[in-house]
Amino acid sequence: MPELRRDTIIGRWVIIAKERGKRPYDFVIEKDKTGGGFCPLCPGNEHTTPPEVLAYGRPNHSPNGPGWTLRVVPNKFPALVIEGDLDKRGEGIYDKMNGIGAHEVIIDTPMHDETIPMMSHGQLIQTFWAYRDRMVDLAQDSRFRYIIVFKNFGRAAGASLEHSHSQLIALPIVPHRIQEEIQSSLHYYEFKERCIFCDIIRQEKSQGIRIVCENNDFITICPFAPRSPFEMWLMPRRHQSSYITMDDNQFHSLTDLFLETMRRLDKALPRVPYNYMLHTAPPRSPFLEHYHWHIEIMPKLTMVAGFEWGTGFYINPTPPEESAQFLREINLD
Amino acid sequence: MPELRRDTIIGRWVIIAKERGKRPYDFVIEKDKTGGGFCPLCPGNEHTTPPEVLAYGRPNHSPNGPGWTLRVVPNKFPALVIEGDLDKRGEGIYDKMNGIGAHEVIIDTPMHDETIPMMSHGQLIQTFWAYRDRMVDLAQDSRFRYIIVFKNFGRAAGASLEHSHSQLIALPIVPHRIQEEIQSSLHYYEFKERCIFCDIIRQEKSQGIRIVCENNDFITICPFAPRSPFEMWLMPRRHQSSYITMDDNQFHSLTDLFLETMRRLDKALPRVPYNYMLHTAPPRSPFLEHYHWHIEIMPKLTMVAGFEWGTGFYINPTPPEESAQFLREINLD
Repeated sequence: MPELRRDTIIGRWVIIAKERGKRPYDFVIEKDKTGGGFCPLCPGNEHTTPPEVLAYGRPNHSPNGPGWTLRVVPNKFPALVIEGDLDKRGEGIYDKMNGIGAHEVIIDTPMHDETIPMMSHGQLIQTFWAYRDRMVDLAQDSRFRYIIVFKNFGRAAGASLEHSHSQLIALPIVPHRIQEEIQSSLHYYEFKERCIFCDIIRQEKSQGIRIVCENNDFITICPFAPRSPFEMWLMPRRHQSSYITMDDNQFHSLTDLFLETMRRLDKALPRVPYNYMLHTAPPRSPFLEHYHWHIEIMPKLTMVAGFEWGTGFYINPTPPEESAQFLREINLD
Repeated sequence: MPELRRDTIIGRWVIIAKERGKRPYDFVIEKDKTGGGFCPLCPGNEHTTPPEVLAYGRPNHSPNGPGWTLRVVPNKFPALVIEGDLDKRGEGIYDKMNGIGAHEVIIDTPMHDETIPMMSHGQLIQTFWAYRDRMVDLAQDSRFRYIIVFKNFGRAAGASLEHSHSQLIALPIVPHRIQEEIQSSLHYYEFKERCIFCDIIRQEKSQGIRIVCENNDFITICPFAPRSPFEMWLMPRRHQSSYITMDDNQFHSLTDLFLETMRRLDKALPRVPYNYMLHTAPPRSPFLEHYHWHIEIMPKLTMVAGFEWGTGFYINPTPPEESAQFLREINLD
């Protein structure tokens, strides 16, 4: 079973995935796994993945066969496993617990080569529904304190399979990075009685210089202090703390703006590798006045090296005002 | 002038290096810069770097010519610049300041192809002296609140030049990552009246399973909760908060153990890309009972992808007990 370990100095958690247990020669022989040959995520190969936990578009057929338009399966090589108790324990001054969690793969499309900017509205909205449906289901498990949804696109951004997919990991603790965000926004709220994300949207609307695109319900900006060139945040314009409370109309609106955002990025930097992460309130959390869900999109254009590891600072050669202007002025016709 | 900007939600700082101002096509044409052709760090090419701020091994020759055994020059493309005032200011809810700092390159050796594990004791100790000498000099500038020394080796770890070099960046603020470490260790000290790093060393000595190598003055371990396979921390065995307070004997001892550590790593994973970072007390800080300087060595074997960006968690496929055993059992003869 994987193990969660806590850095005893700064409290950062890591997952030691013992089962993947790599010795030095494993790293040497691990070459490019993307492209070419067999794809376990393609229709017809459903038997090569663990049994699906969700599928859309195949109402009258039996599970784990073709005919689906979106499919969710447990990760074959999970970072965390779903069976067992947490069993928190110490080892001298160190803390650890069992690696209990869920690790699922959302197969965004049956078409092997279809990237997000190529997708139809009808295809992409299913991905956003699937995020909600899986979050709602996993939120019933009281062992899970947080559910993170993310996508790695391109090998340089960590994707080991080419076929478009997102991932979901349910965790037994609220991660440091999310807790920092929630606590800092609470602190701001206590001081100002306003949501800091709403204040950011207000300032961005009035300044205009970092807006990439927007519609009635959502806005995409390049944040004021981006970690990487062309980093973008997509946020609901009206206050909303949890992704899962979106209504049907918002799902359509989100799909529209996300597609536009990713098409602008793809036209600026064709097939650039990227990561995106959905930040939302913890499952089972009540409505939060101070927290505001959003999606952070990080193109992979710079490197995390000694300076970033050592300080937590990032060096970014492109001001967000320039990134935003470039993306905003792209002609999508 | 570069700009320091603060993320208004979680307080993370970024450096917007406007002068490097990259537009999308700059990223497309930026190919492999390492290897082959001209090297600005090689002897004979001294005129292609900014004038040196320190050189060893050339007592009777004029500066900026050959004959040196180690040379320190300002970075030709600095992330921060040394001239100017800090000028802290706001922009609505956002905070920023001028990108004042120093960014220097320590050319570890005159030999283009010499990597650390190939170096003699007499060559490598100069690098450690240079770190101290530059830190002591820059600490006199009261604008600098922190000085981070690091090395990127190999293109995958962010090195843009092949010739062995380290870097030093003096910053106008103590970075988040360092502050977290110092504050957490202070918290521990207030509670226990002991240094947490000393306690870690004590536990590692008694357990033995995560020790890579040690000598009279230093110890290298694989930490309990490592972010990457084969991550190592090299620490002084006796309490010491600042790197610059080392005595001559310690410099020799550090050089010995660091060489052994890097030779073990290189034999396990030949020419693996890596970063190392020197964590020490802020300049002008008094002796701290609760903080303990150390070097963190991170081989580049896994990727920072969506999960890591989104949560601050790391997934590590190799338990540190296995990494340490493998490194410990390597025969260096």
